[in-house]
Formats: sequence, C-alpha cells, structure tokens
Amino acid sequence: MTASRSHLPLSPDTPDTLGQADIAASLTPLVDITASGMAETNHIIIDRMQSEIDLIPTLAGHLIAAGGKRMRPMLTLAGALLGKSKLGKSGETAMTNAAKLAAAVEFIHSATLLHDDVIDQSDMRRGNKSASSIWGNEASVLVGDFLFARAFELMVEAGQISVLGRLANAAARITEGEIDQMILAGNPSAPIEDYYRVIRAKTAELFAAAGEAGAMIADADKPISDAICAYGLALGTAFQITDDALDYAATAEGMGKSQGDDFKEGKITLPVMLAWQDGSEDERRFWQRCLADGDIADGDLDRALSLMNKHDTITRSLEVARSHATDAGQIIAQLASKSTSASTSASGDVAEALIAAANFAADRTT
Amino acid sequence: MTASRSHLPLSPDTPDTLGQADIAASLTPLVDITASGMAETNHIIIDRMQSEIDLIPTLAGHLIAAGGKRMRPMLTLAGALLGKSKLGKSGETAMTNAAKLAAAVEFIHSATLLHDDVIDQSDMRRGNKSASSIWGNEASVLVGDFLFARAFELMVEAGQISVLGRLANAAARITEGEIDQMILAGNPSAPIEDYYRVIRAKTAELFAAAGEAGAMIADADKPISDAICAYGLALGTAFQITDDALDYAATAEGMGKSQGDDFKEGKITLPVMLAWQDGSEDERRFWQRCLADGDIADGDLDRALSLMNKHDTITRSLEVARSHATDAGQIIAQLASKSTSASTSASGDVAEALIAAANFAADRTT
Repeated sequence: MTASRSHLPLSPDTPDTLGQADIAASLTPLVDITASGMAETNHIIIDRMQSEIDLIPTLAGHLIAAGGKRMRPMLTLAGALLGKSKLGKSGETAMTNAAKLAAAVEFIHSATLLHDDVIDQSDMRRGNKSASSIWGNEASVLVGDFLFARAFELMVEAGQISVLGRLANAAARITEGEIDQMILAGNPSAPIEDYYRVIRAKTAELFAAAGEAGAMIADADKPISDAICAYGLALGTAFQITDDALDYAATAEGMGKSQGDDFKEGKITLPVMLAWQDGSEDERRFWQRCLADGDIADGDLDRALSLMNKHDTITRSLEVARSHATDAGQIIAQLASKSTSASTSASGDVAEALIAAANFAADRTT
Repeated sequence: MTASRSHLPLSPDTPDTLGQADIAASLTPLVDITASGMAETNHIIIDRMQSEIDLIPTLAGHLIAAGGKRMRPMLTLAGALLGKSKLGKSGETAMTNAAKLAAAVEFIHSATLLHDDVIDQSDMRRGNKSASSIWGNEASVLVGDFLFARAFELMVEAGQISVLGRLANAAARITEGEIDQMILAGNPSAPIEDYYRVIRAKTAELFAAAGEAGAMIADADKPISDAICAYGLALGTAFQITDDALDYAATAEGMGKSQGDDFKEGKITLPVMLAWQDGSEDERRFWQRCLADGDIADGDLDRALSLMNKHDTITRSLEVARSHATDAGQIIAQLASKSTSASTSASGDVAEALIAAANFAADRTT
C-alpha cells in the first residue's frame, strides 16, 4: 500500500490527538491507562485507512477525525492489560497486537456508522455533516465496505484465529441487530424485549467482543475474558439506552445531533416504548400516527416531549441505563476481588478504570 | 445459530441444484470435476445464510437462488484439487475446508452484488427484480454486510490464517476497485489504463484470490498457487471485459439485464472508451453529453450502438477479452507441463477443466 496519491486528511505527526472527543472525568482513568496503546492504535488507524484511491482516506478521515470517545478500542486495550500482567516479556508483543485489534474494532464501528448514515439518511454525525450527505450514499457504502475489509486484514496481522472468529461473529450479530431494528421501526407497540434484543446485538455485542478480543490476544485466563465480555455487554447496553434517552434531551445538540432525530426517523427506543405502554388511547393514536404512519406535523415533537415528560420516560430510561452500568461495574469489582492476576496493582488500576468508565456510560450528558 | 424462526427460501434437500445457471459446454469439465465439492459448498451456503432475522435468508436466498455460474467457488475447489493430489488422507479434510472457503467466496461476491444494486439503483439482477428494488436499499446494504461477516466466520472455520489474509486483502481491493469505478463514471476520455485498473481490482482480484485460497488450503506448492492466482487474474479480466461488451450486445437480455444498462448509468467500459478514442469531435460531444452530463434522450442508445458498430468496438473488446482468456489457459498449460504434482492424471483433469473454462470466459454469449 502506498500513500503517494493520497491526501492525508490528518497529520501523522499528531496521532495521539486523533479527534478524541472531550473526555468526562469518569472516563479519565481509562483514557490514562490506555494512553500509550491508543497512541499506537491511532497511528495504525491513520496508516491503514490510506489507499491509492484518494476518496477513501478523505471520506474515512472525515468521520474518524470528527472524534467519538473511542470507547471500543480502549476496551480492547484494557482487556489486553488485564491479561498482560502474567505475560512478562511477551506482554509487549501482545500489546502491539492488541493495538491492531483496537484499530480493527474502530474500523468495524466506523463502517457501521457510514452504513447507518446511508440507512437513516442522516445529515449530521458527530457534529459535522455526515459523509453520505457530502460524498453521497454510494461512496459511504463502499468506504464502509473498505474499512470492514481492512479491519479483517488487521485482525489477520494480530495473528490469532480464535480472536478473529470472535470479532467476525460480533460483526454478523451487529448487522442482524441493525436489520432487526429496521423491522422494529414504526412499531411503538412492540414488546420492550424486542428493543433489548436489538440494542444488545447492534451495540453491546461490539463492546463485549472488543474487550474479550483484547483479553484473548493477551492470553488472559478464561474468568478474565468472560468478565470483560460480560462487562462489555452491560456497558454497551447502558451506553445505548443513554444514547436513546439523550436523543430526546435538550442536550442532544451537544452530541452533534438535533433533539428528536429518532422521532423523525420513526425509531423505536425505550423512552417511546415506555410512553406508549403508559399512554391513553388518544396518546397511542398520536404515537401511531407519528411513528408508524410517519405523519409528523409541526408541534408533534413538542407533544412527544411533553408526553415523555408526563410519564417521566426519559428519567426512567436513564435509570434502566444506570442499572446496567452498575452491573458492569460489579462484574469487574467481583473479578478484581477474586482473581489473583487482577489483584496485581497494574491490573487493579485497570479494574478501577473500567469501573469508573461504567459510570460514564450512564452519567454522560452528551 | 438456530433456523427455527427462519423461512428456508430453498429446500436443503436439493443443494446441488442451488440455482446454478445453465452451463455452457466449455464450462462443463470444471462443473463436473467440482461437482461433489459444489454440493457441499451449496449445503454450507444454505446453512450459513440462515439467521433468527427472517429477512436475511429471504433476501439473500432471493439473490443466491437466482443462480449465477458460481465460477468463483468452483475456482476455489479447483485450486484445492490441484494441491490435494499429494495430501493423501488429509486431502479430504482439505476439501471440506475448501468448500467452506468456496462458500465464503460466494458470500463475498453476493455481498458486493447486493451493494452494487444499491449503488447502481438497478431494478434487475440475474433476470429477477433486484433485492434492493423489492426490500429497499437499507435491507440490501445490511444483508450484504451480514454475508460479508459470515464469509469471515467461514474462513475462520477453515482454520488457516494466511488464507484469511489473502481473502481479506482481496475484499479490500474489490471495494477500492468499486470506488475507483465510481470516480471513473461519466468520464469517457479517461485513459484506458484506468479501466483495466478498475476491472482488475473489482473483478479479477476475487477470481485470483478464490483460486489461490483453494490451493493454499490444500497446501499446494508455491508454483501451483501462483499459477492459479495468475490464471484467476487473467480469467477475471476476460470475464469482465466480455461482460462489459455483452452489455451492449443484443443478447444482453439473456444475462437478465437490458441492453445498454451501462450506458444509462454512465458507466465507462472498454467498448465506450474505444469509441471515444476513435470518435470525431462531434461523436465525442455526443458521448460527453450522454455519459458525463447524463443527458440521455430517446434514440441516444441507438446512436451509441451505431457508433460502436461503426468503430467495431464490441468485437474489438471481445478480442481483448479473448487474449486474456488465452493467457489464462496458457498459464495452466505451462504449469501442467512442468509440475510433477499437476502431471498426475487427477491434476491433469483439473488443468484441462481450467483451460476449457478460460475459453468460456471469452466465448460466452450470456
């Protein structure tokens, strides 16, 4: 691969500042302990999104440079750090391979975002114009495919086929979740279990696989890789529910989106489902008209917000998110109290950072 | 994976008839020698496109059941057969793994077709309505992603990481080729080298990787895997040029497409580029208006066809295809004359079948 014909959208000299978004205090410990690994990961991301076809790094760079919190690659590195303590000298090789996996995980995530924007016809992403609105759907579909293929090339370089299998399986589950979500769209009366099934597949699976892949590449004991997998599932669930609640919060603009984007797209999320559940017949007719029929007039978003307020469904959704975040923290606390390798001071720091990050998933306001 | 909630779009009892399209005589030897492997491959295809999300096997089955000649998976099996002769008992395991790879290759190809139909806004594919025109672009993008992920799961099961790397690299190259083609669209004055670069990446690379992956999984000697890779590149090039020429031929309907589809999409292919090259200024203005400006009126396709006829560009394109097909055949003939393992009678049959198949790539009329 040569970069000779490519415009570098980002300076390769500053990979450690590669668009990582503003960091909340609860995320700081995780950012700190993964800092050197993330610098390496960001180097790999910049290097491997290059292509002789200029449009690829331009488009991919537009998305990736816009930031995001890089939760998923940080989980991969944290998983590897949990395993690394017993590896001795070969620990450094494991961390290099973990950085490749972390970059692969970010590429898979980026690919799904590019495809999501096509599917949702989103104009905005991470506070910028979406790639699909600038370069068109075709380019976004294809660059997504490219990043997906590159992700697998990186996993091959990391060299462990069982890890590859874990992430390939997660990738299949993500697409199942996205299709499931598409089918759920416009149906506010669906059982809430359907929502949990969707967000587990489309979001939580990648958090889980990201962490577990890191643990596996560092040859962590099974209780450690199982724990970080379970942690990722709980964290990812908390993360997505919070995301869905904040979509209706006045702070949505801080997320680079408009308040009520999901409403306009007929997306069925927890705050809406709870409002439907507790709604009068008249209210249900309203939800039906807006979300199932897609017949949305001026003032309807305000009415939706006032109904959610009446039934307190945003707060209740955030409480559900908080309970999953608590689960996530407890999984790691339990691991740290039992596991000998996690009781070394290095692993203890990782455990503390993961527990703090769990709080972030539920407490974030943007 | 359970199939309990899935509608099987195809009977699992008849996997060996899984939509394989009518076979030309020159393809018959390859079909015959890969018959048992293709039966296994088709079983795997049916099994692994299942999902708890019903829409996935329904949509994927619509495309896959419609046929296609399954050239790529047959190349994987042929590559494995070339290597197998020296493997003795472990040859059967290699063939089972080759069938998994063959299914993976067909899934990658199917994923690109689903995404292509979204990009080209095609209404027809393989003589049926395209999946995107029935189920929408969103579903086609996501089911393509699913098949892509499943392909990597199958490669993991085949168990050889170097083979996975080869196919992951091909997948990245395919998307580069597709993006390159998108950029080339509407530019009939581009150098013809651009066209060859596009078709090598978007089409020939997968033929090459398919064959090479088969040889690698059967532990074939390097000269064999190199030869089938080179054969695949030449064959795939011949195949795509023929495809592009036939798009303008009166027999296009036999391919399940309409005559001149590429013209309507502003796609820049060899027959058009040759006509531009040899065209008068007035003719070039015509091509410019139709292909660059997309300003196509009634009668313009007829004029395009008469200009191609005037400069004989369809025949000349088919001649170029024929020269690549001849190259492909000679690569295998040379291998068969040198290699000891390819001179066994079993490998000799494979070589003969591959040489005949090379003729098919250039001589087919549909």
